[in-house]
Amino acid sequence: MKSDLPKALVPLGGQPMLAHIVETARTLAPARLSVVVGVDAAPIKQAFTDAKDIYWIRQAEALGTGHAVLCALREYSEGRALVVYVDGPLVSASALRGLIGQESPLAVLAATTENPSGFGRLIMDDQGCVQRIVEEAHASELEKRVKIVNTGIMAGDGALMRSRLEGMPAPTAEREQYLTDLVALAREQGDDVGCVMSRPEDGALGANTLQELAGLERLYQQRQALELMRQGVRLADPTRIDVRGEVQAESGVFIDAGVVLEGEVRLKKGVSIGPGVTIKNASLGEGTKVEASSVIEGVKSGANCRIGPFARIRPNTVLADDVHIGTFVEVKQAHIGARSKANHQAYLGDVEIGEDCNIGAGVITCNYDGADKHKTEIGDRVFVGSNVTLIAPVRVETNAYIAAGSTISKKVAAGLTVARSRQKHISHWTSPAKRQT
Amino acid sequence: MKSDLPKALVPLGGQPMLAHIVETARTLAPARLSVVVGVDAAPIKQAFTDAKDIYWIRQAEALGTGHAVLCALREYSEGRALVVYVDGPLVSASALRGLIGQESPLAVLAATTENPSGFGRLIMDDQGCVQRIVEEAHASELEKRVKIVNTGIMAGDGALMRSRLEGMPAPTAEREQYLTDLVALAREQGDDVGCVMSRPEDGALGANTLQELAGLERLYQQRQALELMRQGVRLADPTRIDVRGEVQAESGVFIDAGVVLEGEVRLKKGVSIGPGVTIKNASLGEGTKVEASSVIEGVKSGANCRIGPFARIRPNTVLADDVHIGTFVEVKQAHIGARSKANHQAYLGDVEIGEDCNIGAGVITCNYDGADKHKTEIGDRVFVGSNVTLIAPVRVETNAYIAAGSTISKKVAAGLTVARSRQKHISHWTSPAKRQT
Amino acid sequence: MKSDLPKALVPLGGQPMLAHIVETARTLAPARLSVVVGVDAAPIKQAFTDAKDIYWIRQAEALGTGHAVLCALREYSEGRALVVYVDGPLVSASALRGLIGQESPLAVLAATTENPSGFGRLIMDDQGCVQRIVEEAHASELEKRVKIVNTGIMAGDGALMRSRLEGMPAPTAEREQYLTDLVALAREQGDDVGCVMSRPEDGALGANTLQELAGLERLYQQRQALELMRQGVRLADPTRIDVRGEVQAESGVFIDAGVVLEGEVRLKKGVSIGPGVTIKNASLGEGTKVEASSVIEGVKSGANCRIGPFARIRPNTVLADDVHIGTFVEVKQAHIGARSKANHQAYLGDVEIGEDCNIGAGVITCNYDGADKHKTEIGDRVFVGSNVTLIAPVRVETNAYIAAGSTISKKVAAGLTVARSRQKHISHWTSPAKRQT
Repeated sequence: MKSDLPKALVPLGGQPMLAHIVETARTLAPARLSVVVGVDAAPIKQAFTDAKDIYWIRQAEALGTGHAVLCALREYSEGRALVVYVDGPLVSASALRGLIGQESPLAVLAATTENPSGFGRLIMDDQGCVQRIVEEAHASELEKRVKIVNTGIMAGDGALMRSRLEGMPAPTAEREQYLTDLVALAREQGDDVGCVMSRPEDGALGANTLQELAGLERLYQQRQALELMRQGVRLADPTRIDVRGEVQAESGVFIDAGVVLEGEVRLKKGVSIGPGVTIKNASLGEGTKVEASSVIEGVKSGANCRIGPFARIRPNTVLADDVHIGTFVEVKQAHIGARSKANHQAYLGDVEIGEDCNIGAGVITCNYDGADKHKTEIGDRVFVGSNVTLIAPVRVETNAYIAAGSTISKKVAAGLTVARSRQKHISHWTSPAKRQT
Repeated sequence: MKSDLPKALVPLGGQPMLAHIVETARTLAPARLSVVVGVDAAPIKQAFTDAKDIYWIRQAEALGTGHAVLCALREYSEGRALVVYVDGPLVSASALRGLIGQESPLAVLAATTENPSGFGRLIMDDQGCVQRIVEEAHASELEKRVKIVNTGIMAGDGALMRSRLEGMPAPTAEREQYLTDLVALAREQGDDVGCVMSRPEDGALGANTLQELAGLERLYQQRQALELMRQGVRLADPTRIDVRGEVQAESGVFIDAGVVLEGEVRLKKGVSIGPGVTIKNASLGEGTKVEASSVIEGVKSGANCRIGPFARIRPNTVLADDVHIGTFVEVKQAHIGARSKANHQAYLGDVEIGEDCNIGAGVITCNYDGADKHKTEIGDRVFVGSNVTLIAPVRVETNAYIAAGSTISKKVAAGLTVARSRQKHISHWTSPAKRQT
Repeated sequence: MKSDLPKALVPLGGQPMLAHIVETARTLAPARLSVVVGVDAAPIKQAFTDAKDIYWIRQAEALGTGHAVLCALREYSEGRALVVYVDGPLVSASALRGLIGQESPLAVLAATTENPSGFGRLIMDDQGCVQRIVEEAHASELEKRVKIVNTGIMAGDGALMRSRLEGMPAPTAEREQYLTDLVALAREQGDDVGCVMSRPEDGALGANTLQELAGLERLYQQRQALELMRQGVRLADPTRIDVRGEVQAESGVFIDAGVVLEGEVRLKKGVSIGPGVTIKNASLGEGTKVEASSVIEGVKSGANCRIGPFARIRPNTVLADDVHIGTFVEVKQAHIGARSKANHQAYLGDVEIGEDCNIGAGVITCNYDGADKHKTEIGDRVFVGSNVTLIAPVRVETNAYIAAGSTISKKVAAGLTVARSRQKHISHWTSPAKRQT
């Protein structure tokens, strides 16, 4: 994948590849969930410290897939074993269930593909069992035309798989031990090798290149879009939405084209998201509208808020009902009371704003003095004129009215406050003229 | 559709679904255009008050499609009747014309689909007439494989359809009357039932789920993109444009990817629209360029204007020729004269600006005093310095020059005006230091 | 194409169509690279003044493709001649190499298409040679069903092609001379006409309508996306990226959906580009992150810079390591030192800023006085408070601290500088009330 990241941590839908396959494995309720890791174990285990159910298996040397599975089976080999791969993270639980349900001692998951080149081809016998798997390198011209391929995903009797793997010649760095060889071995011993055919939407084929990874990403996004539509979300274009996290949406939600949703997103009834919006970790109240090209993160909004276009909201922002955050406005670490509005070009950082306030265009809270961050507190029904600079820490009382263009550095009482210069007309003035060059 | 809206009002390409099928029906010039509505009639009729040609038919109880058509035929049954559906809003006029043109007493519109599940299958006789329609529930395994399905769209002799529907047992809430049953009835009576096969691009299959609705939306957008290209518009990507209204474009227009066009949009020769732009109800003059990520609405521009990137224009804005509205600038209710420029972070609301003005970065017109909106008037050749605050109502005369950083609250004459404080250096000052925590 | 531009100059992937086919022709290392131009020669030659290797051939009258090729062969007819077209600009070099490699005196490049309508059909003999080419107008019903079509691209013995074209009746405006006729002539003379079959990804079919042009654009973009992934770039969606120029990316780069890359773009290791970003002529240092909806052009950044969301950078900007350019900030013609930050709503034009500076929200450099542009110079460790207006030309010394809301018109020394009015509370004030209307 030409990445410095271990493959397990390469992101897919905003999550490490490993997280996807672990989540799918969990839905099968396995008695034991083992993850085999190699030399790059440390960052992987670190990223999954919360996954207490994972048994980490250390494969000290890269001695092949067969050896990797054996490492795991040595720890636990009761019942039926299912082998999946981090680079096939989107295989559907239903395909895996079908595979586990096979009665033969060993069974493989097959896939059909228009472009089988590079895959091992499955040669079936007339009972629908796997006769053998032919690797690309050893395939005849006729065999190369077979479009039923081995996904590598396999299920079987754990104890039997273990004993057969142990019976193979010990692997070396030069001669790895391949899991696929179990198939030939089973046939030699007279066992049937079952086969479950997956559908394209089962995502059984993995990704070894960035191009294939992009294909998996699209499959994942297609599933997310479908799930959103099932929840009752109207999507302008299901192929132009990216979900990288968990979205819960109520009915009557509309999401326009080019939207990216990250982290935990909750969208209440009738929420509308405009084109080109990015939302991360947000909960938006009923009827709230986010207009075009807004970027919002870490916000909890009440009902009927209007956000954007071109709004930027940063974490720890709480908006009460009917709040308006408008064009080119940035808000962070803010509580804003009901019906208050900041419609144009304001910067509101580290603020508490009461109800029914009007924050003028270009108002800036100076929350940073070069060393520390300070807070601005604004009461109810406050009018802050345009281009007002509020130097925090500062408090503006309820019913205060600050004249446009003022710079405020101390407490503001109710009534009018002004901090600006008188307007003077200069006689005897010559306008700037283009320099001679 | 999991929506609180009646299906007739669910939007498709920015318009209620009903509007599309009504528009298509009109192109057939029917003697009578009837729309059958049920319990949710009120909001639908309200949304179509301007459509004087619609005869609203009230179906008081949901007694089935056959009964619905009968309600309409009781009002008018002369000539040939055509039945279409609000959830099949994109069926092409040409397919409908083909259906009406059939000579048989009754004819149905068929479609082929790769995924016929859920549709009634059309079983044809060897004359190419419909022998019968088998619903999914009653279909044999063999019949289920038929990929020719019933769209439900039907045409026939109005009087005959009426009398046959009247001849059926009266429907009840438990046993609805289905229009499809007319087919079996016709066959029983020895009538031929004609069949017209639609093509995929005819959009004859409707939408009953949000996923199918998204499919219709894409079909609609594909048609709009094609129409734009026929008009002479170069599209960066025909699959990444959304048209929700009427666009008239002259030749030599270029539209980049991710653009949304809403309402009435007129684009004169050589207009260029950048990526991620949203335009609503706008008329843009020859050679005008809208750069990336702008959101403009309700604007009429002259020739060779430059707008954006990141411009926001709101309704009632008129720009003369060669006006520049730049980055992070918001304009509303504005007249701006030829060659005037506001290139950076200005807010211009309720303004009249003359010709050849330069509006500096961060200039704000304070049009709202907390109670009312007021106007700012600026003459020709005015220079408004950066970060100037103009408190409306205010007038700035032709040839005025306002120094940067000034707050202007009264009339400004030609020549230089300043309203700012002197610069002081403070000795004995200690810079803020990080608080100990 | 409904364009005022000559077809050769219609852009594809941000470059004139002619540039693509010329570039491909060059990879074949031809002894002579001739471009035949007609009445619209002037603007074309002008656009290619740097292409010294092109021999311009003037076809004074539009007398057909055969005549055009003859004009070129009269200048040079040694060796093997290859004829390509400006409206088929994406034909792959490998397909052309295959064609040149044919041994027959004449060979054509064929393509298969699902929709052959409009194309000449290739009728083959049983040796796999072209028997004849049937134009749509003269094709029988059976011939019309042939899906192997003539791309028009042809290679052959130059001298032979010349002498045969010269042997044809002289063309007139009414009766043009077609290159295709060479095929019939060769067959008449008993020569084999070879045929090379191109694959869809060879892009051998050209574009004559805006719809076909859009198809070529997508093919081009698909190739660019593939090439980026091969370089090690992770793309969120390979169908939603537009490359219009030359991109060189190191491994570990991530590019989100909806990104447009223009001109020369260099992305060092670990660079991350957010959704909806437009980048033109930029070089971004290791680990630099450009967040959503930024528009940057003409910038060279150091390592680990953070840009956006909603940043606008214009040409001649150099950012040292760890610089932050934030939300709604515009920068142009700027040098910004290491670790300096301008996080919110600033306009920084014609500036030199030292290291470790903090530029507050809403800071504006007034670089234009209505006549000329002037420069702002800022030392190291300077704190510029929010809403400060810096009137250029002006110099701010190292370690200066400018109080928020100040307007600075002369040199600022180290330590604190203030230029703002005192805050006054006005007694006896009545707040604005809604006018009676």
